[in-house]
Amino acid sequence: MGVLSDRAAEDLSKLRNEKPLIHNITNFVAMNFTANTLLSMGASAVMAHAEEEVEEMVSSARALVLNIGTLTGSRLDAMLKAGVKAIENGIPVILDPVGSGATSFRTAAARRILETVSVSVVRGNASEILSLRNDNLSTRGVDTIHTVEDAAGTAKTLAKELRITFAITGPADLVTDGKRVLYVLNGHMLMVRVTGIGCAATAAIAAFCSVDKDLVTAAAAALAFFGLAGEIAGKKASAPGSFMIHLIDALYSITPEMLKNHAKIEDFSTP
Amino acid sequence: MGVLSDRAAEDLSKLRNEKPLIHNITNFVAMNFTANTLLSMGASAVMAHAEEEVEEMVSSARALVLNIGTLTGSRLDAMLKAGVKAIENGIPVILDPVGSGATSFRTAAARRILETVSVSVVRGNASEILSLRNDNLSTRGVDTIHTVEDAAGTAKTLAKELRITFAITGPADLVTDGKRVLYVLNGHMLMVRVTGIGCAATAAIAAFCSVDKDLVTAAAAALAFFGLAGEIAGKKASAPGSFMIHLIDALYSITPEMLKNHAKIEDFSTP
Amino acid sequence: MGVLSDRAAEDLSKLRNEKPLIHNITNFVAMNFTANTLLSMGASAVMAHAEEEVEEMVSSARALVLNIGTLTGSRLDAMLKAGVKAIENGIPVILDPVGSGATSFRTAAARRILETVSVSVVRGNASEILSLRNDNLSTRGVDTIHTVEDAAGTAKTLAKELRITFAITGPADLVTDGKRVLYVLNGHMLMVRVTGIGCAATAAIAAFCSVDKDLVTAAAAALAFFGLAGEIAGKKASAPGSFMIHLIDALYSITPEMLKNHAKIEDFSTP
Repeated sequence: MGVLSDRAAEDLSKLRNEKPLIHNITNFVAMNFTANTLLSMGASAVMAHAEEEVEEMVSSARALVLNIGTLTGSRLDAMLKAGVKAIENGIPVILDPVGSGATSFRTAAARRILETVSVSVVRGNASEILSLRNDNLSTRGVDTIHTVEDAAGTAKTLAKELRITFAITGPADLVTDGKRVLYVLNGHMLMVRVTGIGCAATAAIAAFCSVDKDLVTAAAAALAFFGLAGEIAGKKASAPGSFMIHLIDALYSITPEMLKNHAKIEDFSTP
Repeated sequence: MGVLSDRAAEDLSKLRNEKPLIHNITNFVAMNFTANTLLSMGASAVMAHAEEEVEEMVSSARALVLNIGTLTGSRLDAMLKAGVKAIENGIPVILDPVGSGATSFRTAAARRILETVSVSVVRGNASEILSLRNDNLSTRGVDTIHTVEDAAGTAKTLAKELRITFAITGPADLVTDGKRVLYVLNGHMLMVRVTGIGCAATAAIAAFCSVDKDLVTAAAAALAFFGLAGEIAGKKASAPGSFMIHLIDALYSITPEMLKNHAKIEDFSTP
Repeated sequence: MGVLSDRAAEDLSKLRNEKPLIHNITNFVAMNFTANTLLSMGASAVMAHAEEEVEEMVSSARALVLNIGTLTGSRLDAMLKAGVKAIENGIPVILDPVGSGATSFRTAAARRILETVSVSVVRGNASEILSLRNDNLSTRGVDTIHTVEDAAGTAKTLAKELRITFAITGPADLVTDGKRVLYVLNGHMLMVRVTGIGCAATAAIAAFCSVDKDLVTAAAAALAFFGLAGEIAGKKASAPGSFMIHLIDALYSITPEMLKNHAKIEDFSTP
C-alpha cells in the first residue's frame, strides 16, 4: 500500500479501459504465452516481424516489445526498423535482451538495438543486464548466473548514460532510471520453471508503459501485477503446468483493488 | 436441432472415423494451439512451410489451411505453391486472412492468395473480410473494429464473384456462399481473450470441409462445434488460462449426439 | 524395479542436482512445450537456431537436440554446424527425424544429418525410423502408419552400422544399440493426442543422456520417466488439454523413488 500501489492500481484500471494494442517482435518460444498474457490482462496484442510490415503495424500500436530470443539476422533488421518508427511515433519501446552475453551474436544485437533505438525500458535478468556493458562475462544460455545485486550498479550507470529505465528481475526485482530505485517483492519461485515467463513480464511492462508515462512507476507496477499473479497461481498450483495456467487466469482476475492491496513496491531511492 | 444440426453431427462422426490429415501453413503464435485443436477433435495435423516440401506434404493431406499471421515473403511463396497443388489435387483450401487490412503487406498477401488459388472457404473477423475489398479501411492489428453485420454485404458479394464460402466470426458467426446464409450462435465471450482462437476455428473448418463437400454446411457445423466447446469451457472456467484448456478438452469430449442437440445453426437464406 | 529402474532413478537424481543445459534446434510447433518439459523435469533449456550463434550456444550446453519438424534450409544448415561442434565438444546429439519419409526434403535432411554428425541417439516413430533406410516407404504426415515391430529390424541394423542408439516410440517403446534391446512399457493413450509429445520425449532423452553416458539405459530411463508422467496425467485427466498440463506437472513432481518403483523397462537383449 502507499503511493506506488495506488499508482499501480490506477495504471491497471486505465489499461483495462483503454485496451492498448502492443506490438511484439519476439521469440518463437514465448510468442503464444506472451500474446495470452497481454490478452488476459486486458491489453490487445499483435505479433508481426516481416520487414515489409513492421513500420506500418507499429504505427497502430501504443507500445513496442523487442525481444531477441531465437534471433535471426532478418528479425534483427525488422526490430531496428520498427524501433526507430516507434520512437518517431512517440510510443515506448521495451527491450528484452534474452540470452545477451550467452553468444556474441545476441550481445551485439542487444547493443546495436540500444545504439540505434532510443529504448524506453530494458527488462532482463542480472546476467543479461551485465552483458550490455561487460565484454568478458561468463553466462549460461538464457539463465542468470548473477544476482540482481551484482547487476544493480551496471544498471544504474547505464540508465543514466543512456536515459533508459532498467528492470532487473529475480527473487526481488529492481527498477531504476539511475536516480530512482524501486524494488518489487511480488513473485513466486515456480516462475523460473515456466518458459517465457520473463518475456511475458516484459510484455506486461510494455502494456503498463503504454498507459503511464512515468516509466519507473509503470515498470514497477507491471512487475508487481505480474508477480502477484504468480503468487495467486502459487497458492493454487504446486507444479509448473497448472501454475502457468493459473497465472494466466490471475492476470485476468486481479482487480485494481487487489493490486492496490497486495503490490509490494518499495522505494529505495537515495535523496 | 434440425437438418443442419443433424448434418453437423454426421460430419463430426465422419471426422472421428476418418481422422483426416490437415496440412497447415500458419502463423507462429497459433501453431501449437492449432495442432492441439486438430488432434483433440479427432483429426490429424501436420505443419510444414518450406517451399521445398509443401507440394509433397499437401499431397497426403485432405485439406489445406493458409493463415497469414506472422507472415513473411518466403512463407507466402510456400502458401501459393501449396494452394495451387491442393486445388490440383481436389482438396479444399481454407484461407485465414489474419490482420488483413492492418498492413498493406497482409492485405496484398490475402488478395494475392485469392487471385492465385481457388480458395474454398475464407474465415476471418469482420475487419479482415472487409479489407479484402475496401482499400481505405481503418483497422487495428488483428482485432476487428467492425461488426459481422458491417461485413455481411461484402462477404455476400465476394462470395458470388469468387465462388468462395465466407465465414465471418464474431458474437454470432455468419456463413455464406452468396446465396445461402447461415448464422451460428454457439460461442463464449472468453474466446476473444485466447490468442489463436480464430486460427484454431479456421483449422476446425478445414477438418469439417475435408469430410463434407457442402462447404456452407461444413463451415457452419465446424463453427457450431468449436463454439459449443467454448460454451462447455465457459461453464467450467472463469478466466482465459483454464478456459483454453477446457476448450481443448471439450473438442475431444463433444460427441456427435451432443453436437446434434446443442448446435445453434440458423438458416437466414432468402429464397 | 530392478537394475534398470535403479539406474533410471539415479539418472533423475543427477539431473535434478546438475540442471544440465540442453540446447534445442527444434520445430516451431513444439518449441514452447519442449522448453516447458525440460524446465519442469529439472533441466535447463535454450532454443537458438541462427547460424551466427549455434556453435557458441552449444558450447555451453551438455546435450544438443536436432529436430527437423517445420524444417527450412537455413535451419538445417544451423543444425549441421551445431551438431559438428557438439560432437567436437564431446556432448551427445539427439536427432528427432520428425516427418522423415513424409517428404523427400525431410528424408534427405535426416539422412544428411546422420552422414555429417555422429549422432548419439535417434528418437522417432516407426515410420520415421523406417524412412531412414527405405526409399519407397509410404507414410502420412508426422503420424506413424507402421508398428514399432515393423521398424525394429531396421533400427537394429542401422544402430550397428552407424553406432547409434535408436529409440522407437509407440504403445511400447524400443531402445537398441543393435546389441542390447530394451522395451519401455510406461505411457498413456492420450499422449498421441497432444502435439509435440514425441519432440518433448526426445528432449527428455537428451537431458538423461547428458548425465548418463550409457545411452541405451539413459534413453530407456528418459522414456520410462516421460511415460510415467503420462500415466499420472492419465489418472487425473480424461481429455488432451488438461492431460498435457498434468503431464508437465508430473514431470516436476515425479521423484527418483517414484521412478524406481514405477519404471517399466524390460531387457530383451539376446545373449
